[in-house]
Amino acid sequence: MKYPAQKVKAFIEASFLAAGSSTEHALLASQALLAADLRGVDSHGIARLSGYIRLWQQQRLNMQPNMNIVHETPSTAVLDGDKGAGLVVAQKAMDIAIEKARVAGSGWVAVKNSNHFGIAGYHAMKALNHDMIGISMTNASALVAPTFSIDRMLGTNPIAVAIPANNEPPFVMDMATTPAANGKLEVCERLNKNIPQGWAQTKEGATTTDNRALKSGGAMLPLGSDREHGSHKGYCLGAWVDIFSAVLSGANYGPWVPPFVSFLSPPPNPVGDGIGHFIGALRIDAFRPADEFKQHMDNWIKAFRKARPIKGQPKVQIPGDQERTIEKERLTTGIPIHSSVMEELDKLSQTLNIKPL
Amino acid sequence: MKYPAQKVKAFIEASFLAAGSSTEHALLASQALLAADLRGVDSHGIARLSGYIRLWQQQRLNMQPNMNIVHETPSTAVLDGDKGAGLVVAQKAMDIAIEKARVAGSGWVAVKNSNHFGIAGYHAMKALNHDMIGISMTNASALVAPTFSIDRMLGTNPIAVAIPANNEPPFVMDMATTPAANGKLEVCERLNKNIPQGWAQTKEGATTTDNRALKSGGAMLPLGSDREHGSHKGYCLGAWVDIFSAVLSGANYGPWVPPFVSFLSPPPNPVGDGIGHFIGALRIDAFRPADEFKQHMDNWIKAFRKARPIKGQPKVQIPGDQERTIEKERLTTGIPIHSSVMEELDKLSQTLNIKPL
Repeated sequence: MKYPAQKVKAFIEASFLAAGSSTEHALLASQALLAADLRGVDSHGIARLSGYIRLWQQQRLNMQPNMNIVHETPSTAVLDGDKGAGLVVAQKAMDIAIEKARVAGSGWVAVKNSNHFGIAGYHAMKALNHDMIGISMTNASALVAPTFSIDRMLGTNPIAVAIPANNEPPFVMDMATTPAANGKLEVCERLNKNIPQGWAQTKEGATTTDNRALKSGGAMLPLGSDREHGSHKGYCLGAWVDIFSAVLSGANYGPWVPPFVSFLSPPPNPVGDGIGHFIGALRIDAFRPADEFKQHMDNWIKAFRKARPIKGQPKVQIPGDQERTIEKERLTTGIPIHSSVMEELDKLSQTLNIKPL
Repeated sequence: MKYPAQKVKAFIEASFLAAGSSTEHALLASQALLAADLRGVDSHGIARLSGYIRLWQQQRLNMQPNMNIVHETPSTAVLDGDKGAGLVVAQKAMDIAIEKARVAGSGWVAVKNSNHFGIAGYHAMKALNHDMIGISMTNASALVAPTFSIDRMLGTNPIAVAIPANNEPPFVMDMATTPAANGKLEVCERLNKNIPQGWAQTKEGATTTDNRALKSGGAMLPLGSDREHGSHKGYCLGAWVDIFSAVLSGANYGPWVPPFVSFLSPPPNPVGDGIGHFIGALRIDAFRPADEFKQHMDNWIKAFRKARPIKGQPKVQIPGDQERTIEKERLTTGIPIHSSVMEELDKLSQTLNIKPL
């Protein structure tokens, strides 16, 4: 079934309000989750709403966070998210980054004591309206084995970079540092399809096509899939995100990152507070006039669009194209929500005593 | 044959001096090239010396650059490299980034009008002694096809991040945004060995094991190798580096980046000046006390070293381990230089009228 974006957003907002969020935070959270659904990242949208609420019920997520800058310089800050929803905390971090960039040319905010922040791209894109480049990263609970290991040590740790253009739409990359996001394994499982070689390994470290590899104690592989194809580079990227998000901020890193799912307890002996994000804003005209830059971005984008396709393959895409196409469609036709998610949402509406979706 | 590091460095220094470099710049250039040879990146060390000199002979490289900050804010700057050797220009950029980070917490320098800067890792590592994190990126002439295309649109555009630890050695990632660096194809060609599937494609865009794929009009593939394994993510990373290095600074980007090799002319109708770099420094204590951070880095590194290896595989490495091992060995046993490179260097010593290596 498909549901209009406005209804989906209103339901998310009502849920956060019922759980004690302020009006402002409920709005911010609903915008971030809706963005995932609109852009086609179904695993990170309303499908996760019940998960956030369950974390709140377990007092692992604070609906009334008192967010606090614990340290700062003209271009940097550390934000303590006070266990708030990452959906809200990361937006506060981007607001700080943008303010700092206004004065100092760039702003960089490391965040601790947070929770999952939804899609990385949404937070990076908040800088675009200010003629700034936005960057966002987050760590996440460990699912990925470093090259040569059987142990899950890193999350799928995404990197997003949003860069404004002039007449062309913005360049928006938003990528997990693995060949495929975890959600794609679950899709294969639902469809009873094998996963491609190179996405995951068994618990002994052998490459596998088993869509239940993770559930059987295996691990996801870093981008590059194997050593010969550069998996050590994917491991580097995931490690970079982990260190910037959590070691700079004072959050948990590596195998200590607490899980999103409420049925798993956080690892014992935490090395920091909650999960971490790293959020940045770069003012374009801290480098060159914004108009000039954006005209060159148009030129860059046009040149790449004109690159000749391989026979029988689609045209070259600009990062963000696919998500924009889906968003345009879903704004008209509505957001598809899987029946299993709808069942959860119906239960949620009873628990929270709000109108069903 | 192997040559002592000091002799290699002295020969490079003498070559730059003979070409008109200042004492300071000749020293900087020799240190950057030597670092590549010591760390095992043979393609980027003294093997490239003749290439730099040839560019100078063609007046495409200026040995007496008047480097100039053309725009700045408290945490950002654009540096015009005045066609200097990237080996030197990027070090100047890192000096500026470090100075800005001292005052503003972070410093970010986009560089235009430069040339190839050697290994990215060397420039990033310059921040380490200041209790800072160093970042460096550069674009390069187009060898890589974006996902779905036959056209070479991006260089192997590397990203380096150097992060200090306490008792452990620093975390130093330095990676091309392709499965393998271009130099590895040449090694396969010399050994008459096939390249693995997933490194390159033919000029029609078919995957290939031909080690001469590039020379036959083919292209390198982005990290991830194919769409199913996330090549669109490698394409995103390479594009990000290109835009930060060149669109922010005003250098050439995408297919307009001038080649390093002197027998190829720069593409017509340039869209900027020379090639571009993006250099950053983040002061650790702009986020949290440096000692605290470095102790957590030690903990991070130890945890990853302890990750259980796959049976029959090596232990998990920390980014930078491999290069450090090679450097330690080569400082003792010397730097291996291929006979074909030595022939070139002999000719160079005659051309420049300096003592042979």
